[in-house]
Amino acid sequence: MKNTSAASHASSGPTLSRREFLYRAAAVGGTGLLLNTLNAWGASVGSTENGPPALSGDGKGKTIIILGAGLAGMTAAYELGKLGYTCRILEARDFAGGRCQTARKGFTLKEYGGEEQVCQFDEGQYINHGPWRIPYNHQSTLHYTKLFQVPLEIMVNDNDVAWVYREGAPGPLLNRRVRQLEIKADMRGHVAELLAKAVKDDKLDNELTVEDKRLLLNYLAHEGHLSKNDLKYRGGEGRGFKVYPGAGTDPGPGMESDPLGFKELLGSELGNVYSGVHEIWQQATMFQPVGGMDSIAKAFEKRVGKDIRYGTIVQAIRQQEDGVSIDYRDAVTGATGSVHGDFCLCTLPLSVMGSIANDFSPQFKEALRAAPYLPVGKIGLQMKRRFWEEDDFIYGGHIRTNFQGIGDITLPSTGWQSQKGVLLGYYNFASQATEISAMSLQERTDFALAAGQKIFPSYRESCEAAFSVAWHRVPYNLGGWATWTPEARKTAYPLLWQGEGRVLLAGEHMSYLGGWQAGAIESAWQQVAKIHQRMGA
Amino acid sequence: MKNTSAASHASSGPTLSRREFLYRAAAVGGTGLLLNTLNAWGASVGSTENGPPALSGDGKGKTIIILGAGLAGMTAAYELGKLGYTCRILEARDFAGGRCQTARKGFTLKEYGGEEQVCQFDEGQYINHGPWRIPYNHQSTLHYTKLFQVPLEIMVNDNDVAWVYREGAPGPLLNRRVRQLEIKADMRGHVAELLAKAVKDDKLDNELTVEDKRLLLNYLAHEGHLSKNDLKYRGGEGRGFKVYPGAGTDPGPGMESDPLGFKELLGSELGNVYSGVHEIWQQATMFQPVGGMDSIAKAFEKRVGKDIRYGTIVQAIRQQEDGVSIDYRDAVTGATGSVHGDFCLCTLPLSVMGSIANDFSPQFKEALRAAPYLPVGKIGLQMKRRFWEEDDFIYGGHIRTNFQGIGDITLPSTGWQSQKGVLLGYYNFASQATEISAMSLQERTDFALAAGQKIFPSYRESCEAAFSVAWHRVPYNLGGWATWTPEARKTAYPLLWQGEGRVLLAGEHMSYLGGWQAGAIESAWQQVAKIHQRMGA
Repeated sequence: MKNTSAASHASSGPTLSRREFLYRAAAVGGTGLLLNTLNAWGASVGSTENGPPALSGDGKGKTIIILGAGLAGMTAAYELGKLGYTCRILEARDFAGGRCQTARKGFTLKEYGGEEQVCQFDEGQYINHGPWRIPYNHQSTLHYTKLFQVPLEIMVNDNDVAWVYREGAPGPLLNRRVRQLEIKADMRGHVAELLAKAVKDDKLDNELTVEDKRLLLNYLAHEGHLSKNDLKYRGGEGRGFKVYPGAGTDPGPGMESDPLGFKELLGSELGNVYSGVHEIWQQATMFQPVGGMDSIAKAFEKRVGKDIRYGTIVQAIRQQEDGVSIDYRDAVTGATGSVHGDFCLCTLPLSVMGSIANDFSPQFKEALRAAPYLPVGKIGLQMKRRFWEEDDFIYGGHIRTNFQGIGDITLPSTGWQSQKGVLLGYYNFASQATEISAMSLQERTDFALAAGQKIFPSYRESCEAAFSVAWHRVPYNLGGWATWTPEARKTAYPLLWQGEGRVLLAGEHMSYLGGWQAGAIESAWQQVAKIHQRMGA
Repeated sequence: MKNTSAASHASSGPTLSRREFLYRAAAVGGTGLLLNTLNAWGASVGSTENGPPALSGDGKGKTIIILGAGLAGMTAAYELGKLGYTCRILEARDFAGGRCQTARKGFTLKEYGGEEQVCQFDEGQYINHGPWRIPYNHQSTLHYTKLFQVPLEIMVNDNDVAWVYREGAPGPLLNRRVRQLEIKADMRGHVAELLAKAVKDDKLDNELTVEDKRLLLNYLAHEGHLSKNDLKYRGGEGRGFKVYPGAGTDPGPGMESDPLGFKELLGSELGNVYSGVHEIWQQATMFQPVGGMDSIAKAFEKRVGKDIRYGTIVQAIRQQEDGVSIDYRDAVTGATGSVHGDFCLCTLPLSVMGSIANDFSPQFKEALRAAPYLPVGKIGLQMKRRFWEEDDFIYGGHIRTNFQGIGDITLPSTGWQSQKGVLLGYYNFASQATEISAMSLQERTDFALAAGQKIFPSYRESCEAAFSVAWHRVPYNLGGWATWTPEARKTAYPLLWQGEGRVLLAGEHMSYLGGWQAGAIESAWQQVAKIHQRMGA
């Protein structure tokens, strides 16, 4: 937490130092503004690490071995490189990025125990089968998209018009498509009416003054779209019309729709698809790189690719008196070799560390096993027609289902109104992901199509190609991301974070931003600063 | 309302007829699905007119005079042209689009009584000073963006991270920037807690069963992020952190923030900046054309521009035995002339009809005066640095203020993370718009900057150029859009909609989508069908 935001914006035109900035703010607006301004710097929104560590000194003549060319490894190489260090990145795959991947035409994946899969999407179509979202508050990831000029577009992570579909339970709202906005409007309306009545009838056992009550009734009428005169909820335009307003006299003003019943809604439990505010990392504004998430990986690779040895599978990590030695095997030739450095940053997932020989202490070895990796599955389905846009007027966002093994179906946030699109047919976790991943590729596709078909009549007939991934079966990943129990966070996590000898760890697993690219980047930033300090620079 | 959605998608690949579609849906999913499907067609979301009228017959040899090359006029010319009609569009300006304008470098505007203004923004910077939003439910506008392949991007119309700023009233939350998500999280949390307590204590005088109560408490806990054990609201991650989670052990898990007090929030009335669901035309997904709203005007102009006579100011509309005669004056040479047609579609704003001689009946003349036009002002401010993104992590959306004459300050939804941007510095209406528009151009800019400076410390110093418009002072518009009283909707509106003799009217004023491009397009669609019928085709 050594960085100020000011440092992070060094690349964007004239920069004020933080002190200058605060001085100017105070001069203009007085103390109130000064406080607001402090509030806006770092602490108020965004990861507290908004930029790389501002380091001085020189790493010339020192070699840092970096294991893994994912975002953590490449972030470290980029930042260490700026200081003059020689970085050597060992990467098992023949491309960089780690989990930051995008499947498009020709992308090949062979899961352990699975068939080889070559993506057959049309040119220009793709699925981000790894990370796919960058929230506004992941300033670390956004630091690099800005620095490397990776063009961003909005990822529609919230679409009230999208369908909600619940299967299996009783009640009139089940096995039926309902738009989120109908649920939101009606639940919030009915609930506001209920509370308004209690306030009006003075039923509440609380300390509200007469003025408080007046203000609260005002608020409830506004929040719940209640009729002003009797504070009843009767629907309203926000939930959609039965006949939409238009031109002339027909449809003219249109016709309002009827709200869903309170008890039906309660019984359906559909209200639980939303809450007052989103979880912090799911909030808008949400971004995605134009053309695929791997634009970020490629932007890093362009800068540090010269330091990467591809197809290089790490076999052993050995501490030495004066450095670290890494044994590897070439993925293509099978030839073995080793490389020596002054220090090592290991960004490999903990899930693969078991297969790598090492001379860490028994405690450290045990800690490496403390965080199980979550099984995670995704499938991209190329549809030859954007029926969700054309028939249902849904542009991006998530179809919330309770289908086991499916979860949300997510519509693409790019290529609006074009002919084809790739949607996310399932996003499953844990035991559901394990089950689905045991299927053949064709069975996974069929499974996804059968579910989507219940919601969209054109689903199955529109599907042209599929690409699925089960991260727990992907070589060099063996899981979606690390999961930490509260207990392991207290014991194993700090031990791993400390590192041992001349080895430090980085990656999303070394953060509280598990599964997010920001976790990889921010952990690398902190370890880079530690390495630099340890190198005595 | 003669169109089905099926007709509107004729341009997008293989099309099923509506009947075929419903048949297939029924075959796959049974009756439940059939009902859902019916619900999804037209009536459920979107203007009921999703595509132009499907007309047969031939308009060859017939001439239609169209007054005004705005979206209504060009829509009519495009659709009538497809039927073989000869269209002659008279347009007072030297460009097409009507209010569908975008101000960029070199764009010139001279308001009545005002200085000439030449937009000085940098290349690539612009403001949509007329229409600027296309909601997902304006399928008519989206019909043409799709047909003409106008690329769209998301317009961020809802950003919970954006500041809310209330000036002037007492209380600790006033004259202070607060993020919408803090307000939403805390108000919804406190309100949920209040109702949960009443439910738990059985204070409500209603017919909730024990099971209903359990479900309601569940819902309230979810909606309000209440602690499960005691149903109290204590803040939570959704409202933002005091210290954001990050890598390693510092910040590690970060530190949660403290909620704002219920009574303070109530007293501030900040909760009224949002409601349970957005107004229907303000809901996401919201679009804007890439590069400026005038992309739509230009796409139309490319297709019907050959029919437009520019710089042609309509002087008189005269009914004749066998057609309509229009007198005009050339805006450049001052020469007069007249043009004859079999029929006339007048899309001029009602606000300018007073200056055009006509031989309508006294009732029709009176009806033409029935809808006053709303004074509307906007100002675009080019900022040399995107301080809202860089300092405050706000990407698009509206800063909600209660500043008189300012209203919302809206941040650009394009050029993410680039150096410069044009924000909307005010959006004012009615008497506030009239007052602000009486200022000089420089005074308008100063007024906007003084307001923004209270919220953003870098506002004034970052501003490089401004472009303002007061629509009520713009020649050939004289107002933002028509406003109809309920009384005038009953009397004058249907009379105007009927037209008189061989003249029909179209434009946003001939719809219940006032001020929206969809109103212009849909009114044109309906009138095109009427003209075609009248022409006996």
